[in-house]
Amino acid sequence: MCELLGMECNVPTDIVFSFSGLALRGGVRGPHADGWGLALYEGKAVRTFLEPAAAAESKLAAYIRSHPIKTLLAIAHVRKRTRGPVSLANTHPFVRELWGRNFTFAHNGTLRGVKTRPLHRFHPIGSTDSERAFCLVLDRLDRAFPSGYPKEPARLWRAVARAGRELGASGSFNFLLGDGTHLYARCATKLCYIVRKAPFRTATLADDDLSIDFAQVTTPRDRVAVIATAPLTRDENWTIGRPGEMWVFRRGQLAATLPS
Amino acid sequence: MCELLGMECNVPTDIVFSFSGLALRGGVRGPHADGWGLALYEGKAVRTFLEPAAAAESKLAAYIRSHPIKTLLAIAHVRKRTRGPVSLANTHPFVRELWGRNFTFAHNGTLRGVKTRPLHRFHPIGSTDSERAFCLVLDRLDRAFPSGYPKEPARLWRAVARAGRELGASGSFNFLLGDGTHLYARCATKLCYIVRKAPFRTATLADDDLSIDFAQVTTPRDRVAVIATAPLTRDENWTIGRPGEMWVFRRGQLAATLPS
Repeated sequence: MCELLGMECNVPTDIVFSFSGLALRGGVRGPHADGWGLALYEGKAVRTFLEPAAAAESKLAAYIRSHPIKTLLAIAHVRKRTRGPVSLANTHPFVRELWGRNFTFAHNGTLRGVKTRPLHRFHPIGSTDSERAFCLVLDRLDRAFPSGYPKEPARLWRAVARAGRELGASGSFNFLLGDGTHLYARCATKLCYIVRKAPFRTATLADDDLSIDFAQVTTPRDRVAVIATAPLTRDENWTIGRPGEMWVFRRGQLAATLPS
Repeated sequence: MCELLGMECNVPTDIVFSFSGLALRGGVRGPHADGWGLALYEGKAVRTFLEPAAAAESKLAAYIRSHPIKTLLAIAHVRKRTRGPVSLANTHPFVRELWGRNFTFAHNGTLRGVKTRPLHRFHPIGSTDSERAFCLVLDRLDRAFPSGYPKEPARLWRAVARAGRELGASGSFNFLLGDGTHLYARCATKLCYIVRKAPFRTATLADDDLSIDFAQVTTPRDRVAVIATAPLTRDENWTIGRPGEMWVFRRGQLAATLPS
């Protein structure tokens, strides 16, 4: 099992506080020492930092924490290997281009049977069921919208939920998917979120004594949605996902909850 | 105009010495201050470090120089903007997945007319002619080999050379292309290479007083091919490319020179 972290905002925000909490679970406080990755969008393009090693001891992760990059949309992952060896190719998040934008994907869970489903346009580079599932999701989106990113976003939301439901039937399919505009978050077994907005207050990491007073680093109109496998803070009210539910975040708020 | 740097080896090697020379041209010694990128392969997967800012002043570039990652295949680029604004989406090298492997591409030059050529499977995320040309090259490879990476690599080499010739007819198309196994280097106007092998000796950067004694950091069987827009060292014999020539590097040596 792995841990997921997503952030989607209405103003560029750095993910350092939440990423610090996640990184602690990657080798020090948690068993997820087999790799970590962070994807940060700038418009429709994404940059990734990937390392097939424990985040908690990573100098690159420390560099990122001390040189934060602001973004509207981020996805991070710490990995506890279940299938596939420890390698760069097996390190989440995975990225592909579809319709002239980067799609980014991270998964928590195990899917049986995805290896037997036929691939079309997208092919995995590594050997995880997660990357293969991502390729299958994108294949479905590509076929559903042959002329590109749909003008009515809710059609895309429904198609992502459908793909999640279909593939999730054969295992546990908690995922975060970014398309440069939306963050899709599917709960199969374990996922939660919080939207931070005015009035901002202080929050303390669940796994450390690190606190931050968000009122000092925000403006009253800021909204930041944070999605994680388990609540990252001990003094905030996180909304716990129901199995099969998929959330869509846009401009720092929950745009839709789709059933499964 | 931009500057290209490629490295292809028979044993994992760090690119720090050559990257240091390239980074100097990205904002201090050269005019290429509009972005830099570095792609480092691990098998068929690649990790990239991208920054839409001057390499010479970049803290991330400094971090990479002080925490080298060894690789068999690397591509780097410093950018002087000619078309398209300064942004992450316009920062080389560009990456796409084809046949379950990452292809990586960096370009030096300007191509007229690529905007009017139809795209198929691959679409640019940014607004450079370079990324669009990369998409057009991959479309041609995908169509030429519908069942995937060809068993006879020389067929792929010829297809890359053909695509280079065709697109290069409408401008200047110096490029580096990596497929995880080979490094393809096309000279339109300006490109050179060197293969370092035993007996190794000392080399000094052309743009700085930095020297390295390769005999101290290699074994007798190491072979490292380095490809660059202009010679990076002042005391080695670089082979200068002829317009239209494409080199293929594999296991640290020149595997083929294809005409154009």
